[in-house]
Amino acid sequence: MKIIEFAELGNPADVLKLKEIPSRTPAAGEIRVKIIATPIHPANLLQIAGQYAVTPDLPSIPGGEGVAEVVEIGDGVEHFKLGQKVLMAGAGGTWRDELIAPATAFIPAPPGDAEQLSMLAVNPLTAHLLLTKFKDLKEGEWIIQSAANSAVGEIVIQLAAQRGIRTVNVIRRETLIPSLKSMGGDVVLADGPDLAERVKAETGGVPIVLALDSVAGETFERLVSTLAFDATIVSYGNLSGQLPRLDLTSVIANDVNVRGFWLAKWYEMASQEDRQAAFGTLMPLFAGGHVKTRIDSRFPLEEIREAVTRASESGRDGKVILTPNAD
Amino acid sequence: MKIIEFAELGNPADVLKLKEIPSRTPAAGEIRVKIIATPIHPANLLQIAGQYAVTPDLPSIPGGEGVAEVVEIGDGVEHFKLGQKVLMAGAGGTWRDELIAPATAFIPAPPGDAEQLSMLAVNPLTAHLLLTKFKDLKEGEWIIQSAANSAVGEIVIQLAAQRGIRTVNVIRRETLIPSLKSMGGDVVLADGPDLAERVKAETGGVPIVLALDSVAGETFERLVSTLAFDATIVSYGNLSGQLPRLDLTSVIANDVNVRGFWLAKWYEMASQEDRQAAFGTLMPLFAGGHVKTRIDSRFPLEEIREAVTRASESGRDGKVILTPNAD
Repeated sequence: MKIIEFAELGNPADVLKLKEIPSRTPAAGEIRVKIIATPIHPANLLQIAGQYAVTPDLPSIPGGEGVAEVVEIGDGVEHFKLGQKVLMAGAGGTWRDELIAPATAFIPAPPGDAEQLSMLAVNPLTAHLLLTKFKDLKEGEWIIQSAANSAVGEIVIQLAAQRGIRTVNVIRRETLIPSLKSMGGDVVLADGPDLAERVKAETGGVPIVLALDSVAGETFERLVSTLAFDATIVSYGNLSGQLPRLDLTSVIANDVNVRGFWLAKWYEMASQEDRQAAFGTLMPLFAGGHVKTRIDSRFPLEEIREAVTRASESGRDGKVILTPNAD
Repeated sequence: MKIIEFAELGNPADVLKLKEIPSRTPAAGEIRVKIIATPIHPANLLQIAGQYAVTPDLPSIPGGEGVAEVVEIGDGVEHFKLGQKVLMAGAGGTWRDELIAPATAFIPAPPGDAEQLSMLAVNPLTAHLLLTKFKDLKEGEWIIQSAANSAVGEIVIQLAAQRGIRTVNVIRRETLIPSLKSMGGDVVLADGPDLAERVKAETGGVPIVLALDSVAGETFERLVSTLAFDATIVSYGNLSGQLPRLDLTSVIANDVNVRGFWLAKWYEMASQEDRQAAFGTLMPLFAGGHVKTRIDSRFPLEEIREAVTRASESGRDGKVILTPNAD
């Protein structure tokens, strides 16, 4: 079977190598799957470059999620059958064409759009948890988010629209306004010092009960200034690399709650029921095409260098995915 | 009856005036009380100076809490009797020797230390709510607080010790260490850049689950750095006048929750049951002398100028209280 491997940290286009290793028959309790699609996320590239919170043991196979098809079943595995689609979620080492692992590591997936399902366990799951874990949002309530054109941001827009939750979407470039509105974004605005006033003008001053921020710095500070009494701001990234100043008047007098979200920790702490509930909500939405992650391009494992180069270009229009078993 | 009044904002020692106004018989539903003790809080002085969040309508009588004795009862008032002690809590205009008001404005107080009860509704209530509203603290768990020698801080130490909750107390001057230890403070440390390491050394690295901060600025940042996974920091003041930078690694990867507390808002939003529960817990502790607010000095209304001058001196050793009906 083929794997993508790196034996040293560095520029992904340089250190990633395609390698052939022997396959094997699944042992008792294991299944063998062929990988249909597995995405390239910014966090994968950071980890390969040695710039992520967690540094891998070397050599290492990148990739954290994907969709595969069951091709061989070991003894004692009862709830999978040949040809069935499965999700690899919160797993490691998915950039390969085949995987043999305990059946418990896979989640049965519905029929439908396999590429969309291959990207479910990181960005859509993050968007879903951001929208459910911190506030019991009701239909008609308003939220605000920064980096609204990020993969997570676009799914937040679509998931919120599905539930009748109204979104204020903050971006850096005004050119993106039409595309985010077409996804269901109610208000789309370019960031700037007078953000709070413009949000008020565009929404008519409705209370905004939740802010989702992955930019940090001044953007975090501006989002705080748009919030209603007892609202929550959730920080889940620091794209600007700048720490925000915390406006204590908002925290003390306006009772704004500040929270953080980290998906890796959620995977570590979530119960089996938590996972089933989250994937059970998301799978039909993505398998059926009701909510979508945009896809820029697809590459075979042999073109890993081109794939990671494209994945780190700013001009791309969605996710880059590896499709190791495509014709 | 005598009242203290200010007709213009300014230095309290200059603008506060003693004034005589006619008394009257309580109407139906009202009671007349003689004020035994009413404290001078920093917030009172800030409000008189026009430096507080809320500016009063002028002329205005200062004072937000106190203890009084019922001396006359209007028609239809059934649950108060002559000679009974009552708490004035969350009220306005307590710096006077007598008050006629609806009976519903008063809380029946137990026998015991009236001066201690006169200071219950601001600092002890704040300390109690900080210790109960944000975390379900268990015996043996550790918390940390800044400004541990403030009125609130000293009561946090005592209330925590009563419940077997361990405290790390951060102060500016090392000279205060013995007095805070004698109140029940487990660890007492002077603030400084290496606070987190010294806390670890003194506590043996126990998880600290709650931080209470009224200093803001770098002190807030240092408290955050001492906290355990999923801990909460509650901001309830900004003595330093400096906004902190928010360490997003703590918020995202360490799941630290940031909350605020403002007593005025609690009074606005608390239900009758909330109030009864809070005062029901605190009154026996303070009436019986188990927990104490330190008292620096007592003044009659006639010496209001001396009283507010003393209350704004940094060298004082506790609260300054007005005792309008003392012999």
